[in-house]
Amino acid sequence: MNAAPKIDLALVHYPVLNKVGETISSAITNLDIHDIARAAKTFGVGNYHLVNPYKDQHNLVREITEHWQQGYGAAYNPCRKQALDLVSVVSSIEESIEKLTKLRHNRPVIIATSAAAEEKLIGYRKCRDLLRQGKPILLVFGTAHGLAPAVMNMADYCLPPISGVCGYNHLSVRSAVSIILDRLLGFRE
Amino acid sequence: MNAAPKIDLALVHYPVLNKVGETISSAITNLDIHDIARAAKTFGVGNYHLVNPYKDQHNLVREITEHWQQGYGAAYNPCRKQALDLVSVVSSIEESIEKLTKLRHNRPVIIATSAAAEEKLIGYRKCRDLLRQGKPILLVFGTAHGLAPAVMNMADYCLPPISGVCGYNHLSVRSAVSIILDRLLGFRE
Repeated sequence: MNAAPKIDLALVHYPVLNKVGETISSAITNLDIHDIARAAKTFGVGNYHLVNPYKDQHNLVREITEHWQQGYGAAYNPCRKQALDLVSVVSSIEESIEKLTKLRHNRPVIIATSAAAEEKLIGYRKCRDLLRQGKPILLVFGTAHGLAPAVMNMADYCLPPISGVCGYNHLSVRSAVSIILDRLLGFRE
Repeated sequence: MNAAPKIDLALVHYPVLNKVGETISSAITNLDIHDIARAAKTFGVGNYHLVNPYKDQHNLVREITEHWQQGYGAAYNPCRKQALDLVSVVSSIEESIEKLTKLRHNRPVIIATSAAAEEKLIGYRKCRDLLRQGKPILLVFGTAHGLAPAVMNMADYCLPPISGVCGYNHLSVRSAVSIILDRLLGFRE
């Protein structure tokens, strides 16, 4: 890759599905912030948006990130600061797209992820080609039981589910993000 | 791969290093159990050993896993049960090797992982070849600031650090396990 890849990431907490397929809002969890920020920083992601409509959840994210970005936390672990500097909160996936469109001077190609994707599938190779061509990409991940249809409908493409060796397909979102970033941006022997 | 790969995984809590390079014992964390068990199940790992010398930590693991393996937890989320069925606790890396040697009828090839590996390096391709040849492999991961020299010395090989695009190399162990399992066992387009 000649220039830095233009890739950003959104972790959606609303609208997502619960166990029985209803649309819900999920709570932001500490380790989703940390693990995914560290993976994002490792693979050169520009922005990591936590998508949640609730202001108290926004405050929670700021409390957590600021601990590591300022004062004692920043001095104790500067690497964590670098990762968390990528994090911001937005109220909706539309706001995420709008912000990134301004930042990247172009509407990003929206690529959803799902453990059950069947439509609008795009291969990892094609996705790497888009990045190589300098196209901005927004990778969208769902929490809880995955992205609601409203978000899937907004996506231009969807990455195929991560298939292991025995049909079991229940990775944590933290694992899924890590694997997908590696497949798209990791160094290959 | 024709036969099921013979791969097992150990997450070491002693002996590992702290921030200043001293040998310590780290505490087992809930999400290391869950996230790594789910990734292990996805990619066909046979056994996931949590290595910790303390009996109270063994009890903690049993309390957590049994919640999902019996009664309400098992009925509520059978997929989680399947993943956690891979988990067991052992007191030392030697005990892990001994148990797996019996189980696999052969001493496993011990492959350590490190964010700073420089010696005994083995490529992912070579590692996949070993699995294809039916060799049992024990993948060893460290918590805290990584595996102590005593464990590194025990290893036959070491996988190279996961390199991203900008020299930042501070993944969580949950992310590192997920990426390495995908590189070794994931389906490639």
